[in-house]
Amino acid sequence: MANKNDISEAVVKRLPRYYRFLAELKKNGVVRVSSRELSERLGLTASQIRQDFNRYGGFGHQGYGYNVEKLYDEIGKILGLRNRHSAILIGGGNLGRAVANHIFSEAGGFELIGIFDRKESLTGQMIREIPIRHIDGLDEFCREQRPKVAVLCLPEDAARELAPTLINLGVQAFWNFSAYDVRMDYPEFPVENVHIGDSLLTLCYKISEE
Amino acid sequence: MANKNDISEAVVKRLPRYYRFLAELKKNGVVRVSSRELSERLGLTASQIRQDFNRYGGFGHQGYGYNVEKLYDEIGKILGLRNRHSAILIGGGNLGRAVANHIFSEAGGFELIGIFDRKESLTGQMIREIPIRHIDGLDEFCREQRPKVAVLCLPEDAARELAPTLINLGVQAFWNFSAYDVRMDYPEFPVENVHIGDSLLTLCYKISEE
Repeated sequence: MANKNDISEAVVKRLPRYYRFLAELKKNGVVRVSSRELSERLGLTASQIRQDFNRYGGFGHQGYGYNVEKLYDEIGKILGLRNRHSAILIGGGNLGRAVANHIFSEAGGFELIGIFDRKESLTGQMIREIPIRHIDGLDEFCREQRPKVAVLCLPEDAARELAPTLINLGVQAFWNFSAYDVRMDYPEFPVENVHIGDSLLTLCYKISEE
Repeated sequence: MANKNDISEAVVKRLPRYYRFLAELKKNGVVRVSSRELSERLGLTASQIRQDFNRYGGFGHQGYGYNVEKLYDEIGKILGLRNRHSAILIGGGNLGRAVANHIFSEAGGFELIGIFDRKESLTGQMIREIPIRHIDGLDEFCREQRPKVAVLCLPEDAARELAPTLINLGVQAFWNFSAYDVRMDYPEFPVENVHIGDSLLTLCYKISEE
């Protein structure tokens, strides 16, 4: 089986797609699926899918297809969904609320343990069962709770300003929704970006005339 | 200059990063920037950057660097930001509100002309200057206003259900925030995805132990 670091970004990006499609099949009571069916629905070649799976040990394709439930569970394990990584979320606005709901509705992987905002008017408001705390309490909270991940749902400048503090407080990865390009200042720090603004620019490019 | 269709997804994804970084330089009063400086800050090789720019005509690097303002404007033009593509947004919840604010705060590219939700309790609420309309009025609105883009900020099943209606109503592209994988049903339809759930799974994979 390949070492995680040897696996390309492109393969990694396909794993969630496999996982979601298998969840859909499972929900619909489908028991087996061939790499050809997977390829047709996902717009990938069957050989690409087999190659992807072979990197993780193959999952026992028997000529008559993969067992959906087993494949779903295996990919869930590879994705690390049996973990409960502790996470804090910074920014209790609309985006922060939407993202918090995503974390709650996912089957696993993360546990949201704290939400922070600099707006005093938000302090004490609840997002699901989690109260919004004032950002001034971040330091103490992190020293006590040792969150592993920080979810950045705040403006670019605020994210840039807060990043070194979070890293000093022992946070080990960012899930970054701000326009701040973390790699510019911390090329080695683990970060997963959701750059909504960049996506908007990409869409604009795709649909604009030459 | 290369035809847009010949340019790889990877190059296209770098354009917004160049654009944002140049905006930052411009804001800070920087007049010229070399491909070496760009490469150091963006974590790309200088030759990759020159190659990317050469695809669009080169932008006149003179040995002593690019003119920041000119390069910013040129990349803005390539991204199509001088357009005002009309867009409707479906889903007036937290995510929809956050995304609407993104559209308003971008310099150009899109004009949000309508927001729709199936929840009657939201009908008439305002997001900036746009009222939330009930989804029942979507058909008539689209026939009259001919929006070019639909922004999907709704759950997976609702997005799957609504997609064919929107396509029939003449929408030409989706900016898709739902977990619905549009490509599965419409492989050729232009779509730019922001799959928050997939990003969460990717993050979990990246930080989980082997």
